[in-house]
Amino acid sequence: MTALDKLLASFPPSVVRTDRESLFAASFDNIKLSFPPEAVVFPRDEDDVAALLKLANEYGVPVTVRGAGTSTVGGATPVCGGWVLSLAHWQKLEIDPVSGTASVQPGVITEEISKAAAAFGLFYPPDPASKKYCTIGGNIATNAGGLRAAKYGVTRDYVLALEGVLPTGEKVRWGANVKKFVSGYNFKDLWVGSEGTLGVVTKAVLKLQPLPEARHSFLCAFDSDSRALAAATKILGSHLQPSVLEFMDSLSVACAQKFKGTQFFENCEAPAVLLIEADGTRADVAAQAEQLRKWATEETQIFKETDDPETAETFWELRRACSPAMFMLAPAKLNEDIVVPAKNLLKLLDLMRQVNKDTGLYTPVFGHVGDGNLHVHVMFDRDQKSQRQKAGNAVHKIMKGVVALEGCITGEHGIGLAKTPFLALQHSPAEIAAMRAVKNALDPKNILGRGKIFDVFDVWEKEPVSVKLPWEHR
Amino acid sequence: MTALDKLLASFPPSVVRTDRESLFAASFDNIKLSFPPEAVVFPRDEDDVAALLKLANEYGVPVTVRGAGTSTVGGATPVCGGWVLSLAHWQKLEIDPVSGTASVQPGVITEEISKAAAAFGLFYPPDPASKKYCTIGGNIATNAGGLRAAKYGVTRDYVLALEGVLPTGEKVRWGANVKKFVSGYNFKDLWVGSEGTLGVVTKAVLKLQPLPEARHSFLCAFDSDSRALAAATKILGSHLQPSVLEFMDSLSVACAQKFKGTQFFENCEAPAVLLIEADGTRADVAAQAEQLRKWATEETQIFKETDDPETAETFWELRRACSPAMFMLAPAKLNEDIVVPAKNLLKLLDLMRQVNKDTGLYTPVFGHVGDGNLHVHVMFDRDQKSQRQKAGNAVHKIMKGVVALEGCITGEHGIGLAKTPFLALQHSPAEIAAMRAVKNALDPKNILGRGKIFDVFDVWEKEPVSVKLPWEHR
Repeated sequence: MTALDKLLASFPPSVVRTDRESLFAASFDNIKLSFPPEAVVFPRDEDDVAALLKLANEYGVPVTVRGAGTSTVGGATPVCGGWVLSLAHWQKLEIDPVSGTASVQPGVITEEISKAAAAFGLFYPPDPASKKYCTIGGNIATNAGGLRAAKYGVTRDYVLALEGVLPTGEKVRWGANVKKFVSGYNFKDLWVGSEGTLGVVTKAVLKLQPLPEARHSFLCAFDSDSRALAAATKILGSHLQPSVLEFMDSLSVACAQKFKGTQFFENCEAPAVLLIEADGTRADVAAQAEQLRKWATEETQIFKETDDPETAETFWELRRACSPAMFMLAPAKLNEDIVVPAKNLLKLLDLMRQVNKDTGLYTPVFGHVGDGNLHVHVMFDRDQKSQRQKAGNAVHKIMKGVVALEGCITGEHGIGLAKTPFLALQHSPAEIAAMRAVKNALDPKNILGRGKIFDVFDVWEKEPVSVKLPWEHR
Repeated sequence: MTALDKLLASFPPSVVRTDRESLFAASFDNIKLSFPPEAVVFPRDEDDVAALLKLANEYGVPVTVRGAGTSTVGGATPVCGGWVLSLAHWQKLEIDPVSGTASVQPGVITEEISKAAAAFGLFYPPDPASKKYCTIGGNIATNAGGLRAAKYGVTRDYVLALEGVLPTGEKVRWGANVKKFVSGYNFKDLWVGSEGTLGVVTKAVLKLQPLPEARHSFLCAFDSDSRALAAATKILGSHLQPSVLEFMDSLSVACAQKFKGTQFFENCEAPAVLLIEADGTRADVAAQAEQLRKWATEETQIFKETDDPETAETFWELRRACSPAMFMLAPAKLNEDIVVPAKNLLKLLDLMRQVNKDTGLYTPVFGHVGDGNLHVHVMFDRDQKSQRQKAGNAVHKIMKGVVALEGCITGEHGIGLAKTPFLALQHSPAEIAAMRAVKNALDPKNILGRGKIFDVFDVWEKEPVSVKLPWEHR
């Protein structure tokens, strides 16, 4: 009996699908490199997950866990074939207002958590850009961050407990619905960010926060990128804790303004821009706004401010336009979620200028300066081999530079497939050996996420499939 | 050549000590069970730590890492003999005001971090009761918490990066001086709370917070323990985030008042008490105080409040007296740092009443109700065998009850030796097997912290040594 025969015999037809359409849909994620699996499994409960993993171990079949497939590094790509374990349909969500927590299944769309919590005056702070589409399971797998991390932290800071299944098929629970827990090893935080390679999360308990009473927004123009970044660094060094501190370089702003057909500041053709928001209690926001106004008067070329949500929305239009507008520069873009310490932000700007000079490719930069997690981009034409090569070289240079700046090659996307060539830049052989030892101890047959994180994969070698994903607006 | 000969030959005499006094001093910690090691090693640098561990692996000698020895669960006790690795003399401490971080060696006394940070308007939030004596290395080993965890979190929430040495002697670094880092497995958070069994921390980068501008304190009396806890639960369910929310049951308050020779509330002989503090910006504290005043007017029998630090200090006197005063009830005490979810706090009170009824031993309760981490006590006479047995039974009942209440058997002390009999109450065989697999993968010869966490140890079988430790005030 083959592994597939045994799989088909072990579950009802509604659980295991092998039709061409299902296999194709599960064969790729946001990076669009297609590796068709042998079967897609839609488990009914935790027991199905455990049984599937036991079977996979018996036959040595790789299993790739999948949520919405929004991974930008190929985290949900079944690169070694085998079986895809799809959890997007597990969407139970319950709010416990007394302990201020949410109990969620992995398929819950991230944005839905805050929507449900709002009824109790609560919210779930991590807000990745893909929050309307991505699942909390994927967020846990990559320790997703977002715009508000400088003040509110990342996914890990909100995961109190996880239930799930070990790679070898045993059901486990890590942590509890409490804020202090030091019994045994901290598998909860080992699982968070392990990209589905050390276990399958079937349920999570998340900490919620009180909804801020008030918000105050600033949109600030500067006559150069470095002046904007230097001014942002002053906020970081102060005791202000804005919930949003977004940087847009002048190239990004120029594109965004052209894209929207409007100029955001009079007499300022293409400034570098900071978008800043303070939130909290009314009293606290008023006090923060006063300090920020003082800072803005001293530091900016010109600035606007508002506590009216509709006007704030017009500030956000500039930030939101940056990503789609960028395609004026070239038909394809690489978006790297690198992080550097606050003290090295200006040096990162120098690095990107150098990459632009060396390759001739546009390298617009915008993102979360509040936590050092700027998103740097490389624009290129995928159809031109020379541009593909240049883009590949640019990414290598950026990653090497980021590690030299004491930063991290990935702040919120994970390693997946796309960043595997750079793992050895970030970590020493001893560190990688320790990681592999843990992987091998928990998953001796290398079932979960085979090919991810540790095996070097070249994303440039394979042609992407031509599909339009739900989150693509172009 | 024996292992000890090789050790002595490998390091200068200033690094390795084998005199009787040094061996005795390193043979026990706060639980006072003495197991003399063969040698105490005071490394000069990271290379010494690496060389020592390589040697220990070569000869299969257990190594126990030691800071100040304040562990209440025997975490620093060299229960299997071997070598003690003492790091208390590693006390370098540097503040980086731009990124708002502290770089510390493991021997730094926890309180010193906030003292140094204050010059820059910053502080380090975790504040275990032992902060004047304990080291940050020990805090990292046990993921120490303290009084302000409900608002500010625990040690883990402040550790950005760790440098150290694997059990097999390789130098490694986990994380960086950044707030987002998802490259490879999260060994940083696996090390935090692993009680010195998965690696030796030689340096840590800690996140600091802006010093609160203002503080407002309330001391609130209630006519019963359950009414005080119920009132505290209302604060937890609200959107207030007090930095301190301490509960003292009426038995603790009665002892504390007798000890201090004063009554804290007129016409209230022995109330149950909540000590509450709000901190933050001046505006925010004023807004919080208003809401707390409204709550106190509705809920308490009588209350006092102040924003004057000196008056607040008199409120704290009651809280601080609870621990020493308790010895009026019996000459010895067990202090268990259990945690339960907010919704089960009242049930924990019932559990402790039942234990008191079943054993006849006093079971005063006080502690951090803000995060569910109440410290429950069992008072007994160590010299009476029947009382020792009763105390042992009481602890078993408490641990079983806490797990039944979906809580945790240790919120901030760790398992060490003292809690090893209860590990299997908290975790399933599959969970413990996974933990052991990780331990074995990283430390195949079981060098670091041999005998800790996983091997059941009976603290009642061995007589404690008669010494007075620096932090003992009686």
